[in-house]
Amino acid sequence: MAMKGVLRPGHIQLRVLDLEESVKFYGDVLGLVETGRDKQGRVYFKAWDERDHNSVILRQADMAGVDFFAFKVDGKAALDKFDADLRAYGLATERIAAGELLETGERVRFELPTGHKIELYAEKTDVGNGMPYLNPEAWTPAAEHGIAPLRMDHALLYGPDIEKAQAILVDVLGFYLVEHVLLEDGKTDLAIWLSCSTKAHDLAFVRHAEPGKLHHIAFQLESWEKVLRAADIMAMNKVTIDIGPTRHGITRGTTIYAFDPSGNRFETYSGGYSSYPDWKPITWTIDEVGRGIFYHDRKLNDAFLSVVT
Amino acid sequence: MAMKGVLRPGHIQLRVLDLEESVKFYGDVLGLVETGRDKQGRVYFKAWDERDHNSVILRQADMAGVDFFAFKVDGKAALDKFDADLRAYGLATERIAAGELLETGERVRFELPTGHKIELYAEKTDVGNGMPYLNPEAWTPAAEHGIAPLRMDHALLYGPDIEKAQAILVDVLGFYLVEHVLLEDGKTDLAIWLSCSTKAHDLAFVRHAEPGKLHHIAFQLESWEKVLRAADIMAMNKVTIDIGPTRHGITRGTTIYAFDPSGNRFETYSGGYSSYPDWKPITWTIDEVGRGIFYHDRKLNDAFLSVVT
Amino acid sequence: MAMKGVLRPGHIQLRVLDLEESVKFYGDVLGLVETGRDKQGRVYFKAWDERDHNSVILRQADMAGVDFFAFKVDGKAALDKFDADLRAYGLATERIAAGELLETGERVRFELPTGHKIELYAEKTDVGNGMPYLNPEAWTPAAEHGIAPLRMDHALLYGPDIEKAQAILVDVLGFYLVEHVLLEDGKTDLAIWLSCSTKAHDLAFVRHAEPGKLHHIAFQLESWEKVLRAADIMAMNKVTIDIGPTRHGITRGTTIYAFDPSGNRFETYSGGYSSYPDWKPITWTIDEVGRGIFYHDRKLNDAFLSVVT
Amino acid sequence: MAMKGVLRPGHIQLRVLDLEESVKFYGDVLGLVETGRDKQGRVYFKAWDERDHNSVILRQADMAGVDFFAFKVDGKAALDKFDADLRAYGLATERIAAGELLETGERVRFELPTGHKIELYAEKTDVGNGMPYLNPEAWTPAAEHGIAPLRMDHALLYGPDIEKAQAILVDVLGFYLVEHVLLEDGKTDLAIWLSCSTKAHDLAFVRHAEPGKLHHIAFQLESWEKVLRAADIMAMNKVTIDIGPTRHGITRGTTIYAFDPSGNRFETYSGGYSSYPDWKPITWTIDEVGRGIFYHDRKLNDAFLSVVT
Repeated sequence: MAMKGVLRPGHIQLRVLDLEESVKFYGDVLGLVETGRDKQGRVYFKAWDERDHNSVILRQADMAGVDFFAFKVDGKAALDKFDADLRAYGLATERIAAGELLETGERVRFELPTGHKIELYAEKTDVGNGMPYLNPEAWTPAAEHGIAPLRMDHALLYGPDIEKAQAILVDVLGFYLVEHVLLEDGKTDLAIWLSCSTKAHDLAFVRHAEPGKLHHIAFQLESWEKVLRAADIMAMNKVTIDIGPTRHGITRGTTIYAFDPSGNRFETYSGGYSSYPDWKPITWTIDEVGRGIFYHDRKLNDAFLSVVT
Repeated sequence: MAMKGVLRPGHIQLRVLDLEESVKFYGDVLGLVETGRDKQGRVYFKAWDERDHNSVILRQADMAGVDFFAFKVDGKAALDKFDADLRAYGLATERIAAGELLETGERVRFELPTGHKIELYAEKTDVGNGMPYLNPEAWTPAAEHGIAPLRMDHALLYGPDIEKAQAILVDVLGFYLVEHVLLEDGKTDLAIWLSCSTKAHDLAFVRHAEPGKLHHIAFQLESWEKVLRAADIMAMNKVTIDIGPTRHGITRGTTIYAFDPSGNRFETYSGGYSSYPDWKPITWTIDEVGRGIFYHDRKLNDAFLSVVT
Repeated sequence: MAMKGVLRPGHIQLRVLDLEESVKFYGDVLGLVETGRDKQGRVYFKAWDERDHNSVILRQADMAGVDFFAFKVDGKAALDKFDADLRAYGLATERIAAGELLETGERVRFELPTGHKIELYAEKTDVGNGMPYLNPEAWTPAAEHGIAPLRMDHALLYGPDIEKAQAILVDVLGFYLVEHVLLEDGKTDLAIWLSCSTKAHDLAFVRHAEPGKLHHIAFQLESWEKVLRAADIMAMNKVTIDIGPTRHGITRGTTIYAFDPSGNRFETYSGGYSSYPDWKPITWTIDEVGRGIFYHDRKLNDAFLSVVT
Repeated sequence: MAMKGVLRPGHIQLRVLDLEESVKFYGDVLGLVETGRDKQGRVYFKAWDERDHNSVILRQADMAGVDFFAFKVDGKAALDKFDADLRAYGLATERIAAGELLETGERVRFELPTGHKIELYAEKTDVGNGMPYLNPEAWTPAAEHGIAPLRMDHALLYGPDIEKAQAILVDVLGFYLVEHVLLEDGKTDLAIWLSCSTKAHDLAFVRHAEPGKLHHIAFQLESWEKVLRAADIMAMNKVTIDIGPTRHGITRGTTIYAFDPSGNRFETYSGGYSSYPDWKPITWTIDEVGRGIFYHDRKLNDAFLSVVT
């Protein structure tokens, strides 16, 4: 008991337009650690403080965006049970053999009504965070190579039918709602923030006509001062910043939104509260959504609701 | 699934020597919010950002220390199941009626082999964090009244038979081991850090001949800068600081240890990594324990292993 | 020797449209300490950590803007010498009697070619920073009342003939140039940053057709984390933020620009390098001015060159 | 006017016991930039953000300590005038030819009654801070190599007759007293903090029987978070920490004291207030000196008054 079932976001596969330019960006500017390349030409990265072999996989493609987003579950039995539960719920699932992704066990894939492919898996090789499990230090030089986030943290996805996605994540996978924004009708959700842990969000959705879109993938930093450092490094490397440094009203996290060379938005964020499943969700009305998203400016910028990949 | 069963540390009842002096200390210096007093004369506090009615209860007594430490579980069914499981494990449990603690539901109490009374409960009135659940702000003035931690976070307890306590917490309550320190024999644990969440510790133990002792109760701050602010407020209020500001090697948290007016040690800490139950525990050998506990000084101070209440 | 002559910005008199609304803003939101009101109805403030009686004086008027900006000099002899030197330079000076501003000695006033009234004075009553000069603490509760800057720090003024203003400030008053931005011709300055100390700027100018305009008055905060806190307090109080939190490339300071209720822009900033008069000035070309002003966004916002009072 | 005469601490020559071990320490752990070696075998360093060629010179010797501490003055005329003024005051001065220290002009050396050799000089080659004077970035990778202070900032010297040293520094060189600690008699100073700028101290003294001793040389960091980073780097490199991270009551700076491989104490500090020569000095009585020196612990540690080089 305690932490069971779905543990955390485990990997995301992103489409990029120019692989080598992107490898340079994810490795030297964002400061992820490259951990491998496979026969398909995909390039694997992890954040320095993650222990599992990979969390971000880049695939060259003609169009930017997200191929799939995955969660690690606590063991093979849980994986099988989730597969059965998803099928019982009426969803088609697909089994992808161990090894199709480097150092990653068998995956169960299904598609949410929002048009996003979600994966579950139970095994990924522990390659460590660069420090021994015996008498480690507090951090390593990798913690200062580029922006150097601690981990791939969450994603915000855009698509239709977000209430159906919420039902699956809550009823089948054990997530809970942390915050949500209501549309003008005061009933329908424009956006939802869902957690499978004590994080204010492990996965979030905004209602959007076109399915399967990515708003951003988020990486966690240690402090507001590291957010400043991230913004500085973006400036030095001519990274296009969407907004920030600023704070979100929703989750209270401090943040920068910026774009990778292919136009995929990413977030480097820090802070935000911890939440628990027994907590009452926080509700935002549409007239206050600007403050909810960007607490200081108190209005959405043009890009927030329109620019996705 | 995901966050199930034992959710988080919920309350601690502390013995204090002079109630009114302590109320002033916990309210104005530590900056907790007083939420009630009961017929027994006990005084109830919560941290400003906690939502449940109370997390720290002060009881006047002739000797400082801890009466009991409690965890909130996710519902009545879980409470009953844990009660049954504990009994099945061979432990005596006691039911304490709802309302015996203000705004708190029925509690299941048992004693660990370390001599500490642990409680489980499923209900405590949500009194909010001073902000509405509709369109809230990021924080309130209470966040700057005294040291003003975000929450009561964890405790470090001293007693014998810590491996037996570990077995109960892991096998029955779903905790997992995050870090541990080995004695000179390289086999026996001097200390263990256990989590029921993604926190690096929700409860920790040090092996100690005398049962039922409290090393410290910890309160979470938002940042290293808030740790400095806490130290400043301690200085202004003539609080006895044990050590800090500094960093722990174990958990990587930044910290101050100090004493309340009765001699109960408390910690104001920030940061530290997040952990997951699928992670391999970190091991410390006895020759490096100084660096593990106090990363900068790299040696234990005299008080660490001897001063408890 | 060492620090001689002109010491620091001493006071600014601002025009506000609604005095009581402004008093509430400067006292409770910006968090200055009100120190007096005079027969003309002007209201006096100081930052909590300033020792002299006042640094910001509010005057009700029909149009927002700055009446005058003043520097403290090190003694009556220096005041008289500067008066003589300014006249020798060909500028008209005016003597304003001690006491015309509360707790402030005689002032020498002159007008810069940019159309701004500048004052020099040698005496202002030391009212302390709320802590004794014997065995003080590190800070007081006033350091957390509103945004609570440490001091009124500098101003950025808009007007014509900035090279003539620079000549007076450098040749007569002992300032030195720290940074400057060149126009498209690569010769003429668009903007200049001048220091009379080790601060990266005590007074700055942007070339502008209309004389006597105020771009912003700046207040110093202790850290980037206090800049975040300032932005939060602005959000909570519905203060219009122009831009920020962000960093300047010029001076490297971290910053927020926002507007008081009358539309006067103010800055809450922290950091930036220290400079010395033997240092070679830093030059910015017009194509990089966006990055110079707003380091992260790397472009001027619409308001920067147009909105002044 | 404004900043005139003595500008800032310019260089210190330290004696170290093992040159190559020290070069590694000052270069890779403290993170200074090595800028040259001379025929005598001395090794020259500067902090990354300093522009002048050198600020720390290491000389191999049998005993650790300080050879001399120097201030830069604003020009040859000032240098000659100070030389004349020092002689007129009754002090012997010595002229050391330009080039005796690499890239450094002629120096005027004299000895304070405390037994310390102080130098003045007007010229040192500007080698820049690694960024161009045209359109620079906010910082460079050197800002993260080792502890990487911004500058050599000040020194605390131990010796007799500190009031005589104070008189020379104030009357001849234009320093002013910022803070001082009184002995039990309530009249004699135990310690004095002197500034030639707006820094809370450019040079400080503690009364001590033995002349010419060094308590510490201080290096400035950008923030309290950088102080934590410095402590972490010290821990990783087995540097002996004397005390800290903590805050000084005197100057309010946040600080760590630690020792170089030869036993010379150094400080990595951040913050502290700005001061001006018109400010009334702050006085500490002997019963509060513990809080003045180490604000949080509120007592001197054993080493503070006894361990010097």
